[in-house]
Amino acid sequence: MTETYTESNRTEVRINSERLRRRFDEFNEIAATEKEGVNRPSLSDANREARDQLVEWFEKVGLETTIDEMGNIFGRRKGQNNDLAPVLVGSHVDSQYFGGRFDGVIGVLGGLEVVETLVNAGIKTERPIEVVSWSNEEGVRFQPDMLGSGVFCDRFDLEYAYGRCDKDGKTFGEELERINYRGDAPCEPRDLHRYFELHVEQGPYLNEEEISVGVVEGVYGFSWMNVSFEGQADHAGPTPMHLRNDTLVAMSNVVESVRQITATTGTDLVGTVGSVDVSPNSINVIPESVEFTIDFRSYDNETVQTAVDHIQNEIQWAGEREGVEWDVEEIMRVDAEPFDDTCIETVKRAAEHTNVEYIQMVSGAGHDANYLNTICPTSMVFVPSVGGVSHTEDEYTEWEDVVAGTDVLLHAVLQESDGR
Amino acid sequence: MTETYTESNRTEVRINSERLRRRFDEFNEIAATEKEGVNRPSLSDANREARDQLVEWFEKVGLETTIDEMGNIFGRRKGQNNDLAPVLVGSHVDSQYFGGRFDGVIGVLGGLEVVETLVNAGIKTERPIEVVSWSNEEGVRFQPDMLGSGVFCDRFDLEYAYGRCDKDGKTFGEELERINYRGDAPCEPRDLHRYFELHVEQGPYLNEEEISVGVVEGVYGFSWMNVSFEGQADHAGPTPMHLRNDTLVAMSNVVESVRQITATTGTDLVGTVGSVDVSPNSINVIPESVEFTIDFRSYDNETVQTAVDHIQNEIQWAGEREGVEWDVEEIMRVDAEPFDDTCIETVKRAAEHTNVEYIQMVSGAGHDANYLNTICPTSMVFVPSVGGVSHTEDEYTEWEDVVAGTDVLLHAVLQESDGR
Repeated sequence: MTETYTESNRTEVRINSERLRRRFDEFNEIAATEKEGVNRPSLSDANREARDQLVEWFEKVGLETTIDEMGNIFGRRKGQNNDLAPVLVGSHVDSQYFGGRFDGVIGVLGGLEVVETLVNAGIKTERPIEVVSWSNEEGVRFQPDMLGSGVFCDRFDLEYAYGRCDKDGKTFGEELERINYRGDAPCEPRDLHRYFELHVEQGPYLNEEEISVGVVEGVYGFSWMNVSFEGQADHAGPTPMHLRNDTLVAMSNVVESVRQITATTGTDLVGTVGSVDVSPNSINVIPESVEFTIDFRSYDNETVQTAVDHIQNEIQWAGEREGVEWDVEEIMRVDAEPFDDTCIETVKRAAEHTNVEYIQMVSGAGHDANYLNTICPTSMVFVPSVGGVSHTEDEYTEWEDVVAGTDVLLHAVLQESDGR
Repeated sequence: MTETYTESNRTEVRINSERLRRRFDEFNEIAATEKEGVNRPSLSDANREARDQLVEWFEKVGLETTIDEMGNIFGRRKGQNNDLAPVLVGSHVDSQYFGGRFDGVIGVLGGLEVVETLVNAGIKTERPIEVVSWSNEEGVRFQPDMLGSGVFCDRFDLEYAYGRCDKDGKTFGEELERINYRGDAPCEPRDLHRYFELHVEQGPYLNEEEISVGVVEGVYGFSWMNVSFEGQADHAGPTPMHLRNDTLVAMSNVVESVRQITATTGTDLVGTVGSVDVSPNSINVIPESVEFTIDFRSYDNETVQTAVDHIQNEIQWAGEREGVEWDVEEIMRVDAEPFDDTCIETVKRAAEHTNVEYIQMVSGAGHDANYLNTICPTSMVFVPSVGGVSHTEDEYTEWEDVVAGTDVLLHAVLQESDGR
């Protein structure tokens, strides 16, 4: 059903909530879990199935579909003037292991909905519009995360990305080939006018404030560290306390130090020890070695640096006190990424235009938008996560908020695709 | 080579260090590890091979070999009066995963050496002497530990023991059958005169004091607990600190409390958190759940009880503070086991007779001797563990100490097998 374009269409156009909902539900039948989540980690068979579905829908809506060397999927709707750089919208469809249905998915299906809404309303834009699904955003199977957009934005080499291994020793390159999504298009920066990404907040603020949309002004910077302690395995019975070199006690000291540092360093600093591996991990053996991770984040880069400096001292103290060897490796450091002022203003105007209540906010989580922001003006649209929960099957967003966010995305795209 | 018995033989007889060494080295070629340990967990193929070797040697020395329903292996040398209850010596030949060569092995091969020494010296004893190898002492594959002696001493039912599962869901009963060591002899208490066990100390005292033999007056009691915390998995970035329910922080509080309780409760209390499992164990997800173990030991039962009471309070506080649910289950409680005074005196006299320097001491680790002590007078002979290390491939005992300990075992057995 193609409608005739009028000026009032352009002002009053809204996305089709029911169509988006049908697509959302159908999409999330792929690798659905018992607890209403999805299990579609990067380059899995389930991820391939999701990609196939997406490509089918892109083509049905009439988008010209391109797969690049990283398996990033682009669907392009031509504009009136195809010499102009396109407006790009999108997100990702890989999931955490047993993750949520909204994370990433609403940004890609929302982008598709925006385009189909324009098609059906007969609204032609000066600039082309492209919808993208980035590869390996989550980083749970292949580290680092945001790998597809990272190569696209020249943050990583293609060969580096292909060589990333999962826990079974399979590489990203092999697995991309296996699922038949290693495309021909070069994965490299090209001229883009704007990038907008609709995403769930993954934090509690919008939900607590009962506000439908967050206009994202930037993303926290972070540091990821791997820490290890190496001590002495000994029998838990006959080894007196004063002769112990217990790596788990040293680690516990550090876990508490992480908590203390967040309480005393900066106002927005968060710190997490998320992963722990103990060896030999036996009830009656003093832990010989322990490896664990630390994640510090803040919107202020100096605050992250201060936290890293503090925790390195604490790791050293804990190791010395317990008489165990320590090693710290910072495996990733990303600076805070303030988004483009023009794009932030565009999203605000779009929210005002659609009468959606919004707040301006910072994202604690990293997104593909971080990297896109380094090659073109970028901003994001957040919708609430109920209870602030994400990366689990419990993740949930009220449907009316998804619709409000997609309408804001629509009008941000409309404003920016008029050729100015 | 059979020598003629004389009274001076009886006084001056010593074990054959070279023969014992040859046997020890040959035995430890079975499932030897690269780092000079052994990997022969209970009822594995390697454990079967070790058992087969033992039975072959028992029979070669002329012992009457019996396998009971639990796979405990007995080798009997007749006495002058076989109506008298036998003196039993032994230990175990199952190992930790990638464990040491001495733990258990010297007690069994030492017992065999004692008998062969008597045979070759032409020394006849009034009482029969039996050498035993107990099944599943380590408890690393099938819990609980000391299962073979536990059933023998009526601590556990046979059916309970058969039903114990390893991590792959295989039962003790099935695996015993598979390796062909489910014998016909009833596994139940019978009339025994004495039980002596030679074992490595697994602690640092003898090694620090440079003393070859410890006369063991008893074994620490202990409590084993499983603890779990259940909180909320959340993204490590956008979740502000005050909204976190981080189970790993709660666990770290408890690990430090275990350490603090050992510093302030009793003089000999030791406490260990040895095993930790975190879920989902991802660098950027706040740990939703954590399960871990606590091991408290002391020679004083009230001290163990005080530690258990204290840590339960600490677990509750840590859980409440962090806003997570907690659960504590005591999976095992064993009282301290003071050995028999007569047997302790016998071992001391044997050490004095062989001019071996000794100290009287308590064992921090549990042994089959704990259970045997409940059905017959029992004591143990300890030899030093270099650096106090055990349950790892680094475990080591100087050979001269093994020889000294086996000579003490020999003369303890000789004293007690004269029919008085």
